[in-house]
Amino acid sequence: MNEPDDGGLPDFAAASVTIVGLGLMGGSLGLALKQRCSVGRVWGVNRRATVIERAIELGAVDGGTTDAAEGVADADIVVLATPVQTIVKLLGEIGDHLKPGCLVLDMGSTKSAIVDAMAALPDHVEPVGGHPMCGKEVAGILAAEASLYEGAVFVLTPLARTSRQALADARRLAANVGATPLVLDAARHDRLVAAVSHLPYLAAVTLVAAASQVAAEDALAWPLAASGFRDTSRLAASDVTMMYDILATNRDYVGEMLRRYKGELDQVIDLLEREQDDELRSVLERAWQNRHGVVP
Amino acid sequence: MNEPDDGGLPDFAAASVTIVGLGLMGGSLGLALKQRCSVGRVWGVNRRATVIERAIELGAVDGGTTDAAEGVADADIVVLATPVQTIVKLLGEIGDHLKPGCLVLDMGSTKSAIVDAMAALPDHVEPVGGHPMCGKEVAGILAAEASLYEGAVFVLTPLARTSRQALADARRLAANVGATPLVLDAARHDRLVAAVSHLPYLAAVTLVAAASQVAAEDALAWPLAASGFRDTSRLAASDVTMMYDILATNRDYVGEMLRRYKGELDQVIDLLEREQDDELRSVLERAWQNRHGVVP
Repeated sequence: MNEPDDGGLPDFAAASVTIVGLGLMGGSLGLALKQRCSVGRVWGVNRRATVIERAIELGAVDGGTTDAAEGVADADIVVLATPVQTIVKLLGEIGDHLKPGCLVLDMGSTKSAIVDAMAALPDHVEPVGGHPMCGKEVAGILAAEASLYEGAVFVLTPLARTSRQALADARRLAANVGATPLVLDAARHDRLVAAVSHLPYLAAVTLVAAASQVAAEDALAWPLAASGFRDTSRLAASDVTMMYDILATNRDYVGEMLRRYKGELDQVIDLLEREQDDELRSVLERAWQNRHGVVP
Repeated sequence: MNEPDDGGLPDFAAASVTIVGLGLMGGSLGLALKQRCSVGRVWGVNRRATVIERAIELGAVDGGTTDAAEGVADADIVVLATPVQTIVKLLGEIGDHLKPGCLVLDMGSTKSAIVDAMAALPDHVEPVGGHPMCGKEVAGILAAEASLYEGAVFVLTPLARTSRQALADARRLAANVGATPLVLDAARHDRLVAAVSHLPYLAAVTLVAAASQVAAEDALAWPLAASGFRDTSRLAASDVTMMYDILATNRDYVGEMLRRYKGELDQVIDLLEREQDDELRSVLERAWQNRHGVVP
């Protein structure tokens, strides 16, 4: 599968992998690589030395460093697993320290800003954008699990400069941790996740904000909140830095989706207040059908 | 505990209970009463004979009838467990068939319309509004489970005419199926559930509608939807008749909550589009804190 003469890694199974950022996503990737795959050394980079120690204890990495330049220097594969704006910053700093032929992948939740930054990497490395469509609302290395990527779609957004073999290596890495690779244009990815991921997050944030207003007026609001409220608001507990970076790097598409959402909300308010109950019922029925029929 | 001279049931443990409506809520109540409590006969009323047969097979009721008047005639306790507008209709029909001293409880999701209808029942029966704060997005007798009420708050909304002993019997029934009774004014209940239950439902409906627009334009939208979308949109799969009845009987409070929600949404759109990122981050952080700190 890996043809060294086409720019791919000469020996994927012996590749030295460095994961930068040992939170939920990076830690889970380390666990999955070490438990499920045949790769060489897995190295970790994290700002905080205690997180590296914990990642070693958990078996997510073989060792690590707090210095990104040092951590990526010997790697055949570098995976950037920090919030989006930190990935963009790291891409501006690590270029000179990367080995020729190094596959540079990331797991950031928006892709356009990242592939733009990847385009400025030295010519002798192989960048590919990546975004596994999974996660939990609990952040940090302690929440990491080897099965996180199992069954998830792993979006890959190659650049014009990405070689066929580098993309094949990225696909192989995604498949090796149990995910299903899906190659997609960065802008198309960003628009779709604005609809199915960033909009739900902001709907949950807004729901918690509105219910908090009521709870400030009547202390019985939270005791009456049951599993329906918990599920609908769960995403509001997502890591704020991660989500803020997503919104700041996907402003236009998120804005588009919020306006569509507001349009649907206006329609519901209008039908409810004007007592257009047959039409209101149709809206509920369409949502029921779509939620049952097409949501995976 | 039960003092017959104060209008309560002479022998709660031998009481004959009739549940009208053998869906998720009624079926689960039957299972809980028969498995966890000491009561007399549990009888079921349902429009469809096949549902009664299934409820008997599952052990949710001892027997039943499709005729509500016949089904309630011998009951010491009647529990109405249909959608809200059907409960209102039933209350107008069963009054003449109820035994003196019969406790009439319901499990409808809004309470003002129901306690208004209960006020017109004959003087010799004892009505109490009820709403257990639990459920599942799957409807029907096949989804019923004896543990559904365990740990849930069971709101009770007595009328001015409700005797102290009838309220005590209703509390006892709620506690016997594992729930925590909470006595509340009907209007206060309806306003609070508009915030923590009906608003989340409409937020989920609106989310599915907006994402469906995008999915109609790009078929990859649904394949990219992950657990975050599934959780946030789950309530859109709730039974449409049940939810429609709720909205139609709680229009003013639901409208108030939708307008508050829209206000919060407008603020997020404004901060995002004007790049007021510090304030946007504060909104995300407040929601994070409230979701972690106060949501049960």
